[in-house]
Amino acid sequence: MSPPLVVQKFGGSSVADADRIKRVARRIARERTAGNDLVVVVSAMGDTTDELLGLAAAITSEPDPRELDVLLATGEHQSATLLSMALHGLGVSAISLTGAQAGIITDGRYGRARIAGIEPRRVQAELRTGKVVIVAGFQGQSARASDDTEITTLGRGGSDTTAVALAASLGAARCQVFTDVKGIYTADPRLVAKARQLPVIGYEEMLELAHQGAQVMQVRAVELGWVNGIVIEVLSSFEDAPGTLIREDPLVEQRNKVRGLAHDRNVAKVTIVAVPDRPGVARSIFDPLAEAGINVDMIVQNVGHGGETDLSFTVPRVELALAKKTLEPIVRELDARDLTTDASVAKVSIVGAGLHNAPGYAARMFGTLADAGVNIEMISTSEVRITCMIAEADLETALRALHDAFELERPEPLDLGSDAAAVG
Amino acid sequence: MSPPLVVQKFGGSSVADADRIKRVARRIARERTAGNDLVVVVSAMGDTTDELLGLAAAITSEPDPRELDVLLATGEHQSATLLSMALHGLGVSAISLTGAQAGIITDGRYGRARIAGIEPRRVQAELRTGKVVIVAGFQGQSARASDDTEITTLGRGGSDTTAVALAASLGAARCQVFTDVKGIYTADPRLVAKARQLPVIGYEEMLELAHQGAQVMQVRAVELGWVNGIVIEVLSSFEDAPGTLIREDPLVEQRNKVRGLAHDRNVAKVTIVAVPDRPGVARSIFDPLAEAGINVDMIVQNVGHGGETDLSFTVPRVELALAKKTLEPIVRELDARDLTTDASVAKVSIVGAGLHNAPGYAARMFGTLADAGVNIEMISTSEVRITCMIAEADLETALRALHDAFELERPEPLDLGSDAAAVG
Repeated sequence: MSPPLVVQKFGGSSVADADRIKRVARRIARERTAGNDLVVVVSAMGDTTDELLGLAAAITSEPDPRELDVLLATGEHQSATLLSMALHGLGVSAISLTGAQAGIITDGRYGRARIAGIEPRRVQAELRTGKVVIVAGFQGQSARASDDTEITTLGRGGSDTTAVALAASLGAARCQVFTDVKGIYTADPRLVAKARQLPVIGYEEMLELAHQGAQVMQVRAVELGWVNGIVIEVLSSFEDAPGTLIREDPLVEQRNKVRGLAHDRNVAKVTIVAVPDRPGVARSIFDPLAEAGINVDMIVQNVGHGGETDLSFTVPRVELALAKKTLEPIVRELDARDLTTDASVAKVSIVGAGLHNAPGYAARMFGTLADAGVNIEMISTSEVRITCMIAEADLETALRALHDAFELERPEPLDLGSDAAAVG
Repeated sequence: MSPPLVVQKFGGSSVADADRIKRVARRIARERTAGNDLVVVVSAMGDTTDELLGLAAAITSEPDPRELDVLLATGEHQSATLLSMALHGLGVSAISLTGAQAGIITDGRYGRARIAGIEPRRVQAELRTGKVVIVAGFQGQSARASDDTEITTLGRGGSDTTAVALAASLGAARCQVFTDVKGIYTADPRLVAKARQLPVIGYEEMLELAHQGAQVMQVRAVELGWVNGIVIEVLSSFEDAPGTLIREDPLVEQRNKVRGLAHDRNVAKVTIVAVPDRPGVARSIFDPLAEAGINVDMIVQNVGHGGETDLSFTVPRVELALAKKTLEPIVRELDARDLTTDASVAKVSIVGAGLHNAPGYAARMFGTLADAGVNIEMISTSEVRITCMIAEADLETALRALHDAFELERPEPLDLGSDAAAVG
């Protein structure tokens, strides 16, 4: 029987320079000595991706998406080969594979490809020869005819997705995501001193945290883990300490229902004032935004008076200029009174499975913010989340007040260590 | 009928930064406007290859050759995509292809692969759609099974070989190699002020110049051009001026037979003193050097006295330390008296088709050096070349004296411009 297979993923900060790459190699060598088969997914070194984007920007303001993908994919080729060399230097047999060589097949959409499938034959063959297999993350090749393949990248954080997809395809026992934080926290520890690392979090809760601004894991990777039942461990590449397990959480009803807080500053509020209140207006506003690729999130429409209504919604702050440019002709066409924007807002969310069925949590959130003097501008909810938009200046106050109100510093009531070991 | 196809190659200094890449793009756009189909081969930007080698050296003193090839190949991927983006910015339809995508098949030897064949289907298909095809030079993929391909590089200057091989495979009308010099000179113009650019040079002469240290063109590329009858033009990427044509030269007998001077400082002299003069000694010395991958060039064995002889030969100066390490046990085993080395030597060569059949040239070379006070330490000859090893300190004196003695500053007697046009 072949030994248990572990998939490990190391982010850009973990392989930022030669010394860090050698440290990662030593960690991998230890894991190998423990007797596990290993597939290791790496991101590009440090700021390489941003540097390559800068080079492209120096050439042209609108780089061709296909060419950009080939350019960016070189970052992970480089880190993968260097990590393989470092392992050889430690006497560990290893081989680096490009995304294409590792059989990562994508749907061919440049810059934001999705993994359409994995052909694990080569990875399995290299594992059988006793090698640690290093895979360049963030990339794959399109499923076009085998002699006309194209290199495609998976978007920011895509290496997480590479790792989880490989873990699913290879039937790995564990998928470990090494990063520059120790795990998933009840809130951002840089803003909330009492923030506590969670030993375990459910997929759905993690998805909401990721969607609402927690940047530790790519949303797509969590989705893929959920669909395939892959237990993902998020942990620090700089310390030897247990991380956070992302997994199906059967104990969810026995817990404090709020598991963590998320926040997002990359948000701006757009209000169209005095829109004529008639059918089809919403579509005439949101269709062009969707066509422009702008992600609209919270939407609030006030009750109309006298045939007019105010329509507010949020967009990513980095897309505000594009949103204004897209909306200005529409506002004129609709004969609305005005278009106002506010970029000094932020979103704060409480996340926990089952929140939806326990209305007391919403009341406690709104009451806590009111007591802290924080004004709520917009509200949205999902099955496992309640989000309030507030002034960005109030963000830290709001996070600390909510962390206290929901007693997030209190450890979980259950011993999850042994449970986690049983699953892992 | 499809328009004439031109293959152009741009070296690392021609694409060293964003501005130079944009300049190259404008040159390509002009050529495209002239109505030619274009395949463009690029090297890595500026010092990228050396920087990547430095990264690998920071990881391990003996990088795995396979991993090193994947690492180095990223340099050309980057420059190829950036050049393609720059062309798009000028409104020129273009696509970059990796060596593998361009169908460059190699023999799979890492770091010094030879091109085993070209499958030009994809390049031809992209040309038919009206695109300028940018090919990452210096690399190909091994001919192993299509799902286990390996990236291999062709060694220093390998992009020249990529360009000439593509020109041969695609039946190109011209192969232009753009570089940071204006063409091939009668001697290095940095050392000999009177050096003159040659309008045309034969393949065999160019091969000898390249072998003997002229670094403008890779030897392998010239050989490939010769075998396939590809006319190669070497010209400056920074000026609009005619370069030097490398081609079959039917006028060779009508010329001044010495076409140019070459020199090489990357040379060291090794002498094994008082070797027992018996059969098999040479093999016991040169076999281990060959196994260590050391290129032995000039070999001189003095007439033996009393059963002993001195054996001298040259090795590349960068390989001298390895040569000493390899030879020391052998010298002891052979019971030779001593092993001496001299790294302060240089080679100077006169090159010209037909030199072999005109002994007067050797006499004039030796006499000129003697008159200039330059001592000759070793001599070797080929069909088209006579090489003398001298002290490195005498190199410039020797080059200037020989340039004068063979009247190399005098223009060729024939109008080669119209002839070149007819061939090109």
